[in-house]
Amino acid sequence: MLLEISDRELKRRREALVKELSEQGVKAYILFSATDIFYLTRFAFIPTERPVALVLTAENRAVLLVPRLEEEHAQEGARVEGVRSYPEYPTEKHPMEYLKELLIDLALATGPLAADADGYGSPSGYRGPRLSQVLPEVGVSVLRGLVEKLRVIKSPEEVALIQESARWGNLAHTLLQEYSRAGLTELEISPRASMEATTVMMRTLGRHYRPVAFGGVGASAGFRGQIGLNSALPHAVTINARLKAGDVLVTGAGARVGGYGSELERTMFVGEPSAKQRWFFEKMVQAQEVAFAAIKPGRQCSDVDREVLRYCQEEGLMEYWRHHTGHALGLLGHEAPFFDVGDETVIEPGMVFSVEPGLYVRDLGGFRHSDTILVTKTGIDFFTYYPRDLESLVV
Amino acid sequence: MLLEISDRELKRRREALVKELSEQGVKAYILFSATDIFYLTRFAFIPTERPVALVLTAENRAVLLVPRLEEEHAQEGARVEGVRSYPEYPTEKHPMEYLKELLIDLALATGPLAADADGYGSPSGYRGPRLSQVLPEVGVSVLRGLVEKLRVIKSPEEVALIQESARWGNLAHTLLQEYSRAGLTELEISPRASMEATTVMMRTLGRHYRPVAFGGVGASAGFRGQIGLNSALPHAVTINARLKAGDVLVTGAGARVGGYGSELERTMFVGEPSAKQRWFFEKMVQAQEVAFAAIKPGRQCSDVDREVLRYCQEEGLMEYWRHHTGHALGLLGHEAPFFDVGDETVIEPGMVFSVEPGLYVRDLGGFRHSDTILVTKTGIDFFTYYPRDLESLVV
Repeated sequence: MLLEISDRELKRRREALVKELSEQGVKAYILFSATDIFYLTRFAFIPTERPVALVLTAENRAVLLVPRLEEEHAQEGARVEGVRSYPEYPTEKHPMEYLKELLIDLALATGPLAADADGYGSPSGYRGPRLSQVLPEVGVSVLRGLVEKLRVIKSPEEVALIQESARWGNLAHTLLQEYSRAGLTELEISPRASMEATTVMMRTLGRHYRPVAFGGVGASAGFRGQIGLNSALPHAVTINARLKAGDVLVTGAGARVGGYGSELERTMFVGEPSAKQRWFFEKMVQAQEVAFAAIKPGRQCSDVDREVLRYCQEEGLMEYWRHHTGHALGLLGHEAPFFDVGDETVIEPGMVFSVEPGLYVRDLGGFRHSDTILVTKTGIDFFTYYPRDLESLVV
Repeated sequence: MLLEISDRELKRRREALVKELSEQGVKAYILFSATDIFYLTRFAFIPTERPVALVLTAENRAVLLVPRLEEEHAQEGARVEGVRSYPEYPTEKHPMEYLKELLIDLALATGPLAADADGYGSPSGYRGPRLSQVLPEVGVSVLRGLVEKLRVIKSPEEVALIQESARWGNLAHTLLQEYSRAGLTELEISPRASMEATTVMMRTLGRHYRPVAFGGVGASAGFRGQIGLNSALPHAVTINARLKAGDVLVTGAGARVGGYGSELERTMFVGEPSAKQRWFFEKMVQAQEVAFAAIKPGRQCSDVDREVLRYCQEEGLMEYWRHHTGHALGLLGHEAPFFDVGDETVIEPGMVFSVEPGLYVRDLGGFRHSDTILVTKTGIDFFTYYPRDLESLVV
């Protein structure tokens, strides 16, 4: 049972990036992105005011610079050739100076160098010079998205982890539906479903499951505030509403396996829906069908969104439209590319997307299913398999 | 009972920032930071690939630019004079172009303008031009930290929210300790304590509590992987270890009230600690006492860390040192300033800090208490009040 990315795949990822570096003609690439560092090294850490930087040389040597408090953790957890630490942030010498020293020691300080950003950034009280300021004599070009590009096409291992995630998201959602009833509040339902699904997940997977804590651990399901009329806000936040008869609910469920997630969302009803609610539900399901049918390798991401928009226009639903049809996902909940009229990325086998056109009706509620799909050679496969029909979704 | 920041305080914050803008001689300030936007407007939203920007003019007019899916949400939740929306990201016209149009409509496009960053940033697949690229004819100066500076001294309202947070963090921690016993795993203990504390918190506060979901909702307590030998990693991540006799545990608990948090961490033991464990525990408690005594308005943050370091050196503990003594907190878990030898910020009444010198011993475990304190005119007051003595912390 595969529950985390193998060393073999980490090697393949590194090689793909190194190939890119040699094409770009740089001696090394410096990464500050916690997601991309995890992708390349399997090191999951808590980002703080203290910079973490990965230096990958064109000779495929990877050295991680971490604050002292992460040194042993990085030595254990990061698949790299070396770990260097600096004492602390801010301390008396700035971490960027330690990074410069590391580059000198690796004989890289003459450049040319590239980085995923011109320095570290964090909202947690970090301040520091740009990389180009501490290395003024060297060309540091900012090459964004080199690793993000690798992350777009999922490998068989990534597909297996997302599949496993969807299984436990399904359990969490099943429990969420089971515990949802009029009279209870959001925070009496969601944490219970999440906790029980997580416990079962842990017991089932046993020692094979190593929660690496990148993006959270275990399974979860909830409403994120989309209860009753508040469900008409596509990105509501929790208000701890009490469920009552007649409410529309929009749910969300998933699980983290080896750092990877999946997305399952359903529109549910507390008691029998009204004719109007039923009407919007069916239109939303139909919009999702339009999207599913439109996803084919060789077409552009924008084509999928355009077909959904055309459907909404034909059905007179544009008043209820609020967002694009879907997004890629994997290590992060939202990743590029997007099923969006402005995204001309060509759809390829191995891409993983959410498919979730929504309709949002003030004074009635929100209507959205989200399924996670894999693009295949001919169309799509579903990761999520929770019932989509109305009768199955009345609580 | 105060459970969220009042409109009056939002007004005061806005005025303080506007005063700063006029001193800087700019016509408006553009903010992309979700934390600072919440601080100024009370609008809590889920950051995604879609930029959100707040424009605050020198005449104290605030307009929020949001994606279409957040329009009604922002109208309801944001204390601003206007909400403008753009259709979607990436769509056919880039959100930064809509921001430019908004600035033109507000008669600001001739500048001079300032911004908290030269454009929006997000790991979730966002790409876009810098602000200075879409407004090439205008001077856009990047003024980082204008709002962060306001956030350093906590107001009486902020103090009240942090105090309320500490109360529920204390309950979550009490339950965590109660449920911790040999044979159970981390994920069987923490979610249960967190869920029950949250339920009691909701029932106690009733309709007065509006979980705004900035930084999470409710109360929580856990170990974040610091169980047994793994507790020697200061920033371990969850490994779902099973508790066993002889383990050292390092815990963490808190709660979110009106967006504000507190930090409570304790070193606990599964069964009677060994003489060696007891020794390190007492040294850690003593280091924390040294820090408490060192915190006085008028001194520098670095003084506190330096006294702890001196204590560690005198006691021969530097081998076990891994990080600075503490950090400010409030809307974020870590904020500037820091109790760190490199931080010369003068300590002032109204600052809120964690105090958490730690000792980390390979093959034995980690030893850290964290308390959240308020700087007063003469010294400190404690927000956290969980027992700190060894006998109270054996499970």
